Amino acid sequence: MQSEEVLAALDRSFTWRPIGIVRTPYLHGKEVPKGLGAQHQAEGTIEIAPEFVDGLRDIDGFSHLYLLWVFDRVHGFDLVSHPPTDDRPHGVFATRSPQRPNPLGLTVVELLGVERRLDGASLRVRGVDMLDLTPLLDIKPYLSSVPAERLRRGWLAEAEARRHDPAR
Amino acid sequence: MQSEEVLAALDRSFTWRPIGIVRTPYLHGKEVPKGLGAQHQAEGTIEIAPEFVDGLRDIDGFSHLYLLWVFDRVHGFDLVSHPPTDDRPHGVFATRSPQRPNPLGLTVVELLGVERRLDGASLRVRGVDMLDLTPLLDIKPYLSSVPAERLRRGWLAEAEARRHDPAR
Repeated sequence: MQSEEVLAALDRSFTWRPIGIVRTPYLHGKEVPKGLGAQHQAEGTIEIAPEFVDGLRDIDGFSHLYLLWVFDRVHGFDLVSHPPTDDRPHGVFATRSPQRPNPLGLTVVELLGVERRLDGASLRVRGVDMLDLTPLLDIKPYLSSVPAERLRRGWLAEAEARRHDPAR
Repeated sequence: MQSEEVLAALDRSFTWRPIGIVRTPYLHGKEVPKGLGAQHQAEGTIEIAPEFVDGLRDIDGFSHLYLLWVFDRVHGFDLVSHPPTDDRPHGVFATRSPQRPNPLGLTVVELLGVERRLDGASLRVRGVDMLDLTPLLDIKPYLSSVPAERLRRGWLAEAEARRHDPAR
């Protein structure tokens, strides 16, 4: 049985407003490259609202950023997801499906440039995979990586192996 | 001037509820290791609410997970932050400061084990850096890393260099 304090902590809600908007080449979900080996090389622009521009100081020194954003054109969620990468279903928390209980997106982008203007600022980035006009909630510097040799990638690695050897 | 469609997209809000609660050894912010070379080896437990347990299917195969969570004991924000790592101020989006416009936390943890029960499920993880009873919004699989040799880490790298050579 879950403790009283856990139950109380679960019974809350949090409200967020965008700090900016991401402009991308993608108008519809089907245009976004997905699945095994998908390359996210598309360039996009982040328009930062004027009141948050001071938060960008020194961001120029980072090569990569985390963007935290909202899947704002998704309605509802599925706890079991059917990713394009595999013919088997998986739990939503083991996938990057947009149909999540909290529709939060997370993308690592490469920072190409920062432009400051009187009415705001914009960041030019490479590696966007969200739709045009996506609400952005936060930007964080990308500071370190888990070494590739320490990563296990569960069903995704198995799906890749099956694709190369369909007898599995 | 920002376009009408960007201004309209900025004028929205999103409300979310936790999918679970993170139990950690940290009761106060000052107990969490911070700054240059801070090691996050602490173990913690994620208590998943019963209605979201089906979303964990196949998560066991991943060695590392992203946790997206709420700095729920922080009030207000500062666009310019004074990280413990440096004696110079930096824009909040170039730091991991908790005082963010949207107080979203992002942590990479190592998955140690999954326990499913009748009234929920819990994940044992290593690398927690949030306070006990932190609301968790989402879990995503950690699929790939940016190679270390491609990363530039701006003011953080400069602060590290100054620490080793205070004449800079």
